[in-house]
Amino acid sequence: MNVPQLQAIVDRSPLNRWLRMSVESIGNNCITLRIPWRDEFISSPERQSTHGGILATLIDGGGDYAVAAAIGRATPTLNLHVDFHRVAPPGDLVVNARVVHAGRTVATAEAQVFDCGGRMVASGRGLYFVGAQAKQ
Amino acid sequence: MNVPQLQAIVDRSPLNRWLRMSVESIGNNCITLRIPWRDEFISSPERQSTHGGILATLIDGGGDYAVAAAIGRATPTLNLHVDFHRVAPPGDLVVNARVVHAGRTVATAEAQVFDCGGRMVASGRGLYFVGAQAKQ
Amino acid sequence: MNVPQLQAIVDRSPLNRWLRMSVESIGNNCITLRIPWRDEFISSPERQSTHGGILATLIDGGGDYAVAAAIGRATPTLNLHVDFHRVAPPGDLVVNARVVHAGRTVATAEAQVFDCGGRMVASGRGLYFVGAQAKQ
Amino acid sequence: MNVPQLQAIVDRSPLNRWLRMSVESIGNNCITLRIPWRDEFISSPERQSTHGGILATLIDGGGDYAVAAAIGRATPTLNLHVDFHRVAPPGDLVVNARVVHAGRTVATAEAQVFDCGGRMVASGRGLYFVGAQAKQ
Repeated sequence: MNVPQLQAIVDRSPLNRWLRMSVESIGNNCITLRIPWRDEFISSPERQSTHGGILATLIDGGGDYAVAAAIGRATPTLNLHVDFHRVAPPGDLVVNARVVHAGRTVATAEAQVFDCGGRMVASGRGLYFVGAQAKQ
Repeated sequence: MNVPQLQAIVDRSPLNRWLRMSVESIGNNCITLRIPWRDEFISSPERQSTHGGILATLIDGGGDYAVAAAIGRATPTLNLHVDFHRVAPPGDLVVNARVVHAGRTVATAEAQVFDCGGRMVASGRGLYFVGAQAKQ
Repeated sequence: MNVPQLQAIVDRSPLNRWLRMSVESIGNNCITLRIPWRDEFISSPERQSTHGGILATLIDGGGDYAVAAAIGRATPTLNLHVDFHRVAPPGDLVVNARVVHAGRTVATAEAQVFDCGGRMVASGRGLYFVGAQAKQ
Repeated sequence: MNVPQLQAIVDRSPLNRWLRMSVESIGNNCITLRIPWRDEFISSPERQSTHGGILATLIDGGGDYAVAAAIGRATPTLNLHVDFHRVAPPGDLVVNARVVHAGRTVATAEAQVFDCGGRMVASGRGLYFVGAQAKQ
């Protein structure tokens, strides 16, 4: 799958369009996504911190699209685990994700989110259902 | 803490205001939040499914505000675990959350998200830093 | 499934026999297991703390057998999330587990581990593969 | 910290001694541990599978000792997330672990467990409390 093909999958989702999520690159089992800043991302106005839900959305999406780039289609997330490492200040966010293991029914992917200064602000992993019957 | 006091904490966050998150009730170590539908929540237009990132945001926020209602202030999330149980169709989403354990430095909370038909669509837990020095 | 039937499933596992795991009761979507103390469980001799790996084993087994009691057979664990709440001192450990959601391909269960004084020392959740093809 | 120093920390734990856990190497923010096979590790005699609790113990211990090698002392685990990728057959198990992020109060580590054929059988991450007051 190439960047425009994956971007087309990303753009099908209204949430991704609201996030203005762009596919930066696709590598060997890994991808990079970027979202530009929106003021609606703020959790605490005093700390000027990005809401953990936005970071979790990026971990989920990053893992999902890394799996999609590997198997050719988006898949449902079964579960998600996110560690928050430090406050993410306003600015573009970049997520790197890669497939950890792809089995016959489930795939595990991990992802790291970086702030505009290149600091890792969150990381985690998702489990995706890749079985033939994509019903949970 | 009463409902207007917790609502004031919730409303400090621009993301919560975008989500139009309302505090429905506060009980003994537990709370209920509600968000009305937005079309931007959709992940797959074909399946009309709510994005997992929105559900994760509700698990995170639910746990955070359950802890806040118990200890009197919002606290940083250390990590988050979310299981997605079924497709969440368009409609209001309600989250019930409760404190599982509150220690001296961290607190664990669990939460369930329900769709407008009362079906549980996701559940999970968050770990929150409640120590005196609220720096991660 | 009744207690002797579930005990027979539990006893098939050499690790469970080493743990001397006993099924105490089976309820509506929930079960209770007990293991007696072994000195090999200790993590820190100074703190006389039970190793987190033993507590994780109980969360995994509790969830697995709650699902087994519900669907009639043991199933592979896909993943596991455990929060450790306090030091578990030497003494019997009891785990209560219940099925949170059982779908067509995966089931989520949650469990709490209690020390001999009835204090909750750990809690968490497991995801189990219940699909017809029990290959991961 | 060098290998004999970390081995001395590992050997303080009776569970680690029962597992006969050995420190193979210490690198830059990462470590490798090994445990030889014991028949008590088996979960399903039919599938000859290693119990997930043993794999979870290795993920927890791997992460803990990667943090210990970095900061000079063992620390309490706050929580643990483990993905099981495939059946682990009888044979030595090796865990590679590395520190993902070390903050002032908590540190995140990730680990992979490999079977005797070099296949990754499980992977995951732990959160460790590294603050000055090592009470949870």
